[in-house]
Amino acid sequence: MALITAEEIFEICRAEMPLVLDLGLEIQDIGEGTCRLRQPYREAFVRPGGTISGPTMMGVADCAMWIAVMSVVGKAEMAVTTSLNINFLKRPKPVALIVECRVLKAGKRLAYGEVSLFSEGEEDEGPVAHVTSTYSLPPR
Amino acid sequence: MALITAEEIFEICRAEMPLVLDLGLEIQDIGEGTCRLRQPYREAFVRPGGTISGPTMMGVADCAMWIAVMSVVGKAEMAVTTSLNINFLKRPKPVALIVECRVLKAGKRLAYGEVSLFSEGEEDEGPVAHVTSTYSLPPR
Amino acid sequence: MALITAEEIFEICRAEMPLVLDLGLEIQDIGEGTCRLRQPYREAFVRPGGTISGPTMMGVADCAMWIAVMSVVGKAEMAVTTSLNINFLKRPKPVALIVECRVLKAGKRLAYGEVSLFSEGEEDEGPVAHVTSTYSLPPR
Amino acid sequence: MALITAEEIFEICRAEMPLVLDLGLEIQDIGEGTCRLRQPYREAFVRPGGTISGPTMMGVADCAMWIAVMSVVGKAEMAVTTSLNINFLKRPKPVALIVECRVLKAGKRLAYGEVSLFSEGEEDEGPVAHVTSTYSLPPR
Repeated sequence: MALITAEEIFEICRAEMPLVLDLGLEIQDIGEGTCRLRQPYREAFVRPGGTISGPTMMGVADCAMWIAVMSVVGKAEMAVTTSLNINFLKRPKPVALIVECRVLKAGKRLAYGEVSLFSEGEEDEGPVAHVTSTYSLPPR
Repeated sequence: MALITAEEIFEICRAEMPLVLDLGLEIQDIGEGTCRLRQPYREAFVRPGGTISGPTMMGVADCAMWIAVMSVVGKAEMAVTTSLNINFLKRPKPVALIVECRVLKAGKRLAYGEVSLFSEGEEDEGPVAHVTSTYSLPPR
Repeated sequence: MALITAEEIFEICRAEMPLVLDLGLEIQDIGEGTCRLRQPYREAFVRPGGTISGPTMMGVADCAMWIAVMSVVGKAEMAVTTSLNINFLKRPKPVALIVECRVLKAGKRLAYGEVSLFSEGEEDEGPVAHVTSTYSLPPR
Repeated sequence: MALITAEEIFEICRAEMPLVLDLGLEIQDIGEGTCRLRQPYREAFVRPGGTISGPTMMGVADCAMWIAVMSVVGKAEMAVTTSLNINFLKRPKPVALIVECRVLKAGKRLAYGEVSLFSEGEEDEGPVAHVTSTYSLPPR
């Protein structure tokens, strides 16, 4: 069972990272060590070439890991990224991003997981980007 | 000699990524395969814990690689990130980020480099984050 | 359907990388873009602390990617690693390694995939290491 | 000043990793947080295409980080790799590898550094591979 709810996450964001709310990120599902997000498309995300910028995808992936980590360890908004590795696999369409995250290990001090990002409606054609990331957990 | 100037970069940004200009990023130096940027501190970058968010640092580092790549291959705003790996080494201060980038290889199709991010005024205490990244170059 | 067989892989190894055969690596399964290997335990793999060394796991993971890539693109022993990222998640037992690889993207020039390594008999407890890797494909 | 000597490192290897000695790895220099190694060329390292195999370079780079970490924290052979990221930049010549490692951060629990590998005699033409790696340090 997930140890955090979408409502609790939005509360943290409202209090401490209002910018995230402005982006319209939707939480479609939270499981134990997993989450599925949807990031609606915004003109502001575009980079030369008419495609969604890398930093946009990195930001959404990092946010997905943060949520998936808290789904395992509980409310721990002080969990911080220690590393993130992203590979861009194909040009995303100018549509929403579907973001699927899965924690592969949650230890006492570190959590590690992976995130796949898809262009909405093209999930069958494989991810547009793939991320692995390590989070450092606050003492509990 | 750098094959692109700060002015040309700002022109591309104005035309295609106005958001970058809003962030106030400064280009302090461009060499052949190197650049030094300064990202002034903004409240909007903060994450829980009062520190600069990971995605902020990823975005600035990605931008530094894009500039350093163009300093070697010339105006090539269609160069795109194929991978980026970031390690967060210590909590940045709530001050400007100084960003130093160096291209280690520029081939026909791919360029690879590294980026070190420092809290301004604490450059001697080592980077707060370190990035390596690969860019795919458009055919010339 | 896999475009290469275990027998063809062992033939390449016999001709060009006899060392791999000495290690006793077993190919348990090859699918289209997937493979499952088993690396029997050897005293020679041990590092201080009595655990299997990192380079042993990196080598087996790299080999798994090479095989999985050829399962998609056909015999292409000249495919070469361009990057490999490994995260060690827990101390492996002094037993065989089970290695599962999956290609996430196979393009014209690059293939990208992930590899999970397990201690044999403890597959349910999650991977001991996780790898992502990019291969450069020879012109076809 | 380096907190470990080449002689102490070879002692650990003799006792616990005799295989490393068989490879003929030479320690040319150890500083505080740095080391320079030379790995003589061996037929056994070759992969299809007549080039030095990726796992050979990963193993040497991992060893360099292990030594550079101990140069900062002292004899700590139980320090273990938690992550390693390698990018292969160009085909190495069939000659010795020169390996330069630099620790960028040594904290209480983690150390992070980078390694550049060169073909001997072609150091001016840039690295053949570049590595970043994190080590977990034993409690002191």
